[in-house]
Amino acid sequence: MTAGSVTTAPSAQSDAERFLDVRRMTDLLASRLSVEDQIPQSMTPASPAAWHRAHTTWFFEEFVLGRVPGYVSPEPNFRFLFNSYYEAVGPRQPRPQRGLITRPSVAEIGDFRARIDAAVVEALDAGNVDERGLELLELGCNHEQQHQELMLMDLKHLFSHNPTDPVYVARDADPAHVAPGEMDWLAVVEGVAQIGADSGDGFSYDNERPRHRVWLPGGEIATRQVTVGEWKQFMADGGYSRPELWLSDGWAAVQAFDWDAPGYWRRENEDGEDRPPGAAGAGVEDGEWTAFTLNGRRPVVDAEPVMHVSFYEADAYARWAGARLPTEFEWEAATTGWDVRDELDPARCHPRAVSERAIGGVWEWTASAYLPYPGFVTEEGAAGEYNGKFMSDQHILRGGSALTPAGHTRHTYRNFFPAASRWAATGLRLAR
Amino acid sequence: MTAGSVTTAPSAQSDAERFLDVRRMTDLLASRLSVEDQIPQSMTPASPAAWHRAHTTWFFEEFVLGRVPGYVSPEPNFRFLFNSYYEAVGPRQPRPQRGLITRPSVAEIGDFRARIDAAVVEALDAGNVDERGLELLELGCNHEQQHQELMLMDLKHLFSHNPTDPVYVARDADPAHVAPGEMDWLAVVEGVAQIGADSGDGFSYDNERPRHRVWLPGGEIATRQVTVGEWKQFMADGGYSRPELWLSDGWAAVQAFDWDAPGYWRRENEDGEDRPPGAAGAGVEDGEWTAFTLNGRRPVVDAEPVMHVSFYEADAYARWAGARLPTEFEWEAATTGWDVRDELDPARCHPRAVSERAIGGVWEWTASAYLPYPGFVTEEGAAGEYNGKFMSDQHILRGGSALTPAGHTRHTYRNFFPAASRWAATGLRLAR
Amino acid sequence: MTAGSVTTAPSAQSDAERFLDVRRMTDLLASRLSVEDQIPQSMTPASPAAWHRAHTTWFFEEFVLGRVPGYVSPEPNFRFLFNSYYEAVGPRQPRPQRGLITRPSVAEIGDFRARIDAAVVEALDAGNVDERGLELLELGCNHEQQHQELMLMDLKHLFSHNPTDPVYVARDADPAHVAPGEMDWLAVVEGVAQIGADSGDGFSYDNERPRHRVWLPGGEIATRQVTVGEWKQFMADGGYSRPELWLSDGWAAVQAFDWDAPGYWRRENEDGEDRPPGAAGAGVEDGEWTAFTLNGRRPVVDAEPVMHVSFYEADAYARWAGARLPTEFEWEAATTGWDVRDELDPARCHPRAVSERAIGGVWEWTASAYLPYPGFVTEEGAAGEYNGKFMSDQHILRGGSALTPAGHTRHTYRNFFPAASRWAATGLRLAR
Amino acid sequence: MTAGSVTTAPSAQSDAERFLDVRRMTDLLASRLSVEDQIPQSMTPASPAAWHRAHTTWFFEEFVLGRVPGYVSPEPNFRFLFNSYYEAVGPRQPRPQRGLITRPSVAEIGDFRARIDAAVVEALDAGNVDERGLELLELGCNHEQQHQELMLMDLKHLFSHNPTDPVYVARDADPAHVAPGEMDWLAVVEGVAQIGADSGDGFSYDNERPRHRVWLPGGEIATRQVTVGEWKQFMADGGYSRPELWLSDGWAAVQAFDWDAPGYWRRENEDGEDRPPGAAGAGVEDGEWTAFTLNGRRPVVDAEPVMHVSFYEADAYARWAGARLPTEFEWEAATTGWDVRDELDPARCHPRAVSERAIGGVWEWTASAYLPYPGFVTEEGAAGEYNGKFMSDQHILRGGSALTPAGHTRHTYRNFFPAASRWAATGLRLAR
Repeated sequence: MTAGSVTTAPSAQSDAERFLDVRRMTDLLASRLSVEDQIPQSMTPASPAAWHRAHTTWFFEEFVLGRVPGYVSPEPNFRFLFNSYYEAVGPRQPRPQRGLITRPSVAEIGDFRARIDAAVVEALDAGNVDERGLELLELGCNHEQQHQELMLMDLKHLFSHNPTDPVYVARDADPAHVAPGEMDWLAVVEGVAQIGADSGDGFSYDNERPRHRVWLPGGEIATRQVTVGEWKQFMADGGYSRPELWLSDGWAAVQAFDWDAPGYWRRENEDGEDRPPGAAGAGVEDGEWTAFTLNGRRPVVDAEPVMHVSFYEADAYARWAGARLPTEFEWEAATTGWDVRDELDPARCHPRAVSERAIGGVWEWTASAYLPYPGFVTEEGAAGEYNGKFMSDQHILRGGSALTPAGHTRHTYRNFFPAASRWAATGLRLAR
Repeated sequence: MTAGSVTTAPSAQSDAERFLDVRRMTDLLASRLSVEDQIPQSMTPASPAAWHRAHTTWFFEEFVLGRVPGYVSPEPNFRFLFNSYYEAVGPRQPRPQRGLITRPSVAEIGDFRARIDAAVVEALDAGNVDERGLELLELGCNHEQQHQELMLMDLKHLFSHNPTDPVYVARDADPAHVAPGEMDWLAVVEGVAQIGADSGDGFSYDNERPRHRVWLPGGEIATRQVTVGEWKQFMADGGYSRPELWLSDGWAAVQAFDWDAPGYWRRENEDGEDRPPGAAGAGVEDGEWTAFTLNGRRPVVDAEPVMHVSFYEADAYARWAGARLPTEFEWEAATTGWDVRDELDPARCHPRAVSERAIGGVWEWTASAYLPYPGFVTEEGAAGEYNGKFMSDQHILRGGSALTPAGHTRHTYRNFFPAASRWAATGLRLAR
Repeated sequence: MTAGSVTTAPSAQSDAERFLDVRRMTDLLASRLSVEDQIPQSMTPASPAAWHRAHTTWFFEEFVLGRVPGYVSPEPNFRFLFNSYYEAVGPRQPRPQRGLITRPSVAEIGDFRARIDAAVVEALDAGNVDERGLELLELGCNHEQQHQELMLMDLKHLFSHNPTDPVYVARDADPAHVAPGEMDWLAVVEGVAQIGADSGDGFSYDNERPRHRVWLPGGEIATRQVTVGEWKQFMADGGYSRPELWLSDGWAAVQAFDWDAPGYWRRENEDGEDRPPGAAGAGVEDGEWTAFTLNGRRPVVDAEPVMHVSFYEADAYARWAGARLPTEFEWEAATTGWDVRDELDPARCHPRAVSERAIGGVWEWTASAYLPYPGFVTEEGAAGEYNGKFMSDQHILRGGSALTPAGHTRHTYRNFFPAASRWAATGLRLAR
Repeated sequence: MTAGSVTTAPSAQSDAERFLDVRRMTDLLASRLSVEDQIPQSMTPASPAAWHRAHTTWFFEEFVLGRVPGYVSPEPNFRFLFNSYYEAVGPRQPRPQRGLITRPSVAEIGDFRARIDAAVVEALDAGNVDERGLELLELGCNHEQQHQELMLMDLKHLFSHNPTDPVYVARDADPAHVAPGEMDWLAVVEGVAQIGADSGDGFSYDNERPRHRVWLPGGEIATRQVTVGEWKQFMADGGYSRPELWLSDGWAAVQAFDWDAPGYWRRENEDGEDRPPGAAGAGVEDGEWTAFTLNGRRPVVDAEPVMHVSFYEADAYARWAGARLPTEFEWEAATTGWDVRDELDPARCHPRAVSERAIGGVWEWTASAYLPYPGFVTEEGAAGEYNGKFMSDQHILRGGSALTPAGHTRHTYRNFFPAASRWAATGLRLAR
């Protein structure tokens, strides 16, 4: 088995069609970006859009075409420039300096994409991709889809620093939502559960495997996510100023980063002096909360799931609510069978109002640390660095977000971020 | 139940005798320190010995005497100066500035200890300590014992910055050890195990409870700890220079901190130029490894368990050895019934050679993150801050060390430190 | 008088012609840059080329057009985005985040330039610019010329982070130089000297004025700059490893930044492992020193003036050579009457070999701190922030460099940078 | 000539009497400190009192006894531990870790002092100190006096972190002062002035020499220092919130360090929540300003000179007052002939009310950078590191403070600190 593994084809698509579909989605998402938009790196964990486009391409060259007899890279420098973190592949551009690469140009990166696309399809058509190569092709497709979400996350972070509030994609306001009612709870029965992906289930990452037994302690899980409206109550009740609600590191983060609301939120016309004249949302009342979104700056909407909260905030909220976060095992056991909803819609790029017994829209922090499943073994070779080497000091998120490409919001998928991260579309669901 | 809880007396000792025994051990350990030695704080996570002595005393005043009707503190400022992190108690001296407090003097802190000792014994004798107060008294005794180990750890860290290599306690070299043979492995059977402490088992901390079921995946655990001699093989095989052995954060730590050996180790006469003339161990051969210990600087001993390694190093070693770290559940299930050995001996303060089917000597990093057990609830009141608020981004250690007071090295005890920590007496045991 | 002041026209050019000449030079220099090249900010003190182009334009709008009755800015947000540091003008984009502005686009910034050019010319033609406005127009032209040099400096810094060694402008190697002979010295006579610019001398910055008397102590000054060849001797003699040659802060900088050669220098094939395959200069011998230049990476040339050395390095070199740096007063008194040479040639952008009794090619560190001349007064209004508020903890450089636009390399000009700066084209001349 | 030089004896005292007088003053100042007080280092630029006592002793051993034939140090490790920054002498304890040395003990350092005292006196009596040795003895005495002031400054900084407001020396409040009247101004005539110390004038440091000519531009200097009362007006007029008053680096410091008053000031009962119950000055009205002093925390006194202001604050105040700081040359020319007042009184350790035409009480920031005088040459040998290597990015202070030992407050003395420093007793005098 491999870092990403599949034994049956995920659909009736040919490998080449599948590959090209993924590649086209990246191009569609990037097509709204100017050349300028694709260059900056707004913080070390984020990357330029041009880099995402080149790196995903390099991945196919390195891992798929690199296995094709006689293949010679037309751009050997790109291996250095666009390797992300694979130590086994060799040295690479330092991560904090990805935003300093202006040559090759965006157009040349586009050419690189086209050239690799053609070479991959040609190799597939010629039958020059061996079985391991096909596995790595599928891994590469999933990898590129992950980078589609990262590219949008990173872009949102970048745009949020522009005081003119750029719009990635315009969108009409949703019709007025009926605020969701009381939280409903679903029992999670005590006993042994089967957790994780099976090789026969279609593609899964190495960190979702092997499927194994876990003892569930029994409890209840909420049937919907926590909303913006509920989060405002937490804020109104002093949530950000009561140390007893917080983990010790969380309270330190509140003070270090001056958190008083979710990421990208701003109260209008209170701290507004450091803005250009045309920046604040027109027609917004004084004191109202707005959030910067990929649709521009907009008033926050009570019925939507709260997002851009850190693990620390999610944990504090749960304590305030007299509840806790679910473990990833409870989550997986409870949500299996629920609907997948609110995956990436390129015309929207923002979650819809919460709904019952469904996952998607926002990633959900769990109480679980990111650790290997019993029997997990780091593979030989560079692909072995895909997931395993990050298994310390990160927290598991489950589900998927409104930026997650279709097919990734599955019940065994394990996403992970450090506890203080807020730039992913991260929300929460309660347990007790 | 409470942060620390006990339903049956731990022994036939009276509460007052038990209390005074613990207090006297602290005084014995501090009696070898000069006034000067008790003042500095060598890094933020460490504390001055004077502070440890005062803080543990304050704990009894705050939590036990604070419940005695009519008790008035003779030193209200001490509540500010010697509170560690209890937000519910009020403001306190900033942690990084504990080493800047020179008044009250060390002698006044001694007086404070004596006064509180007398007040506690008087309250006990007079029957003025209620049931909850007795629970908190027991918690305070355990708390003070934890600080006995911390005080020695912190002192070692402090002394290690003195180029004259101070000796805390002199000790003859052990007789020549026979190096331990091949590692033996014990099977850990797949299935449900009961993990954690029961209220009826004697004292336990809140984080050891409640006792609950866990599914063990099955595997093997080594019957002894990894030795200094084995660690030298890891070093000789390039252990500190091969990124493929390391977690991503671990490799970053290797580079950031220039790790090339366990903490406190030094290769003699290689980087020796920045030392005073009298510092290096006399009679040590060029190129030999020495370690700074509480018995002064001494050559490392192959048969001893390796210690002062971080979680990252333990994890890398295990990968190099083709093994892994055990989970805390495997550890607890496997070691129950094994001997407890090598607890704090004030005349030694250093581990003995490893032995089979025993715990103690060095703490053992596990593969488990520090998380609450199912059903763990943070208590009301300041005592609720004891353990729960640290349950993020720390790693579980099990067992106990040669600095751990007698009675603490038990099979359910959960110690925890951040992954990069090296100043505790931390070693490892393999699993596979 | 004003921050920049002139009482007689600098030439027979009309104001509009003068203005458009300056503006066209900026456009010429930028014309070799791709859109991508104009976006990143490679460090906080540097700025994106797009920002330089917009900021210089904003300066004319704010200070010249802002005085024209009825003028309304078509882009009020630009005042926020492209103000550099004028507190009196209002809030502005944080300096470290200039590289995060991707909208307005580079093309829109070009349009902004064209619109402001037309508005300025129209206002001049209509006689709508008052006398103060004409002074500020001249200040704006000089300001834009300063930014031409900054834009090239910043670009060089940016490109130096690209492992593919981009070329800003291609250039053939110079014909073989005859290495300059022994240093010649010119006496500087003891006594009173007149220092600084007079209002009647043509344009000068406020910090060059008022002209005033200084007592010169008497000494000698070298008739040429220190060369690359001489600097190699300093390096060969352990210049970077002998603390006795260095100021205390300088020695700390050597250790903090691992300096062992001037900025942008690299010894080929010694630390070459972290580079992409196509990066190193072809045909360069192992162990040879190359420097990254605006003409790409090239072997260093002995006859050229050394550049990209910090004040600390210049000071250490002088001490090693048994000499010292001249004060800015000695420098000005001695060099008055010497040739100005080696100003900005857009087809070259790199200094020529040193020559006798001439200034230009590289800026020359002096022994003088950047302080106000006697009688200097900070002006009222935002233009008063031009130079005065930087008069602490910076060091005076005199002369001009191969990136300095024609007309700026004058004997009274006072450039200034912090002591550790190396990204300007900074060299030195000895005194004794 | 030497780093510190003298050609005629400063008084009729014998060398041994002079030496012992200085040594006894250090012991007197230290005699009020507990052992505990002598250990901590409260910030990197400060040092423990025990270190000051040992370092000054080491200086005599290294530079004076080191020249005595046959002298062998009884404590060779002390050379490593108590060398401050003399690179030529060899490696030394890292400066930020001076507070981690608890052995040798304070008593052993006292013994070291006594032993070196005896050895020096014996060598003097035996005629074993050569002429250069006598020069270095005088330098050592002046060096120790500088450390007397540093020890008190550092102690004040240390004690200020203790929320119980320790008292170094008790003192009654001064009788009510009459506030000083309007500022008087003294003309400083334009023309050549002789600046600096002459070898025939008694002891001076190398940085005061050689005496040389300077052209004074002409101006006026205030006949007294700026008072606390005047500083309150600056604060009331928004002095700390108006960027137009500040140097650019100064304004950055205001924001980085949250400066809103001089160092050690606190407004009572406004931010008082983070203090222990016994800390605030009894009998102080709400909202009143107090300052931490070596006499404990006390209300500020309007007639005293303001102190613990940085260069940036002094400069901003001068700009606010429509004035400027004097250059060190104006200062020296104007104050020559004025009284020296308010030197170190061990029973007081705090400045008296300002007085006319006098220097002392507080150091006075000047407009001058710390640069070598014309003809200054760094000496050979370790003593050459005394002053010269700090001649960059520091600012000249003139005069002396209430912590400056008698004899040091002279008209040619050049003190220096970085612009943001506030822990010395630094005030200001205006010029215009």
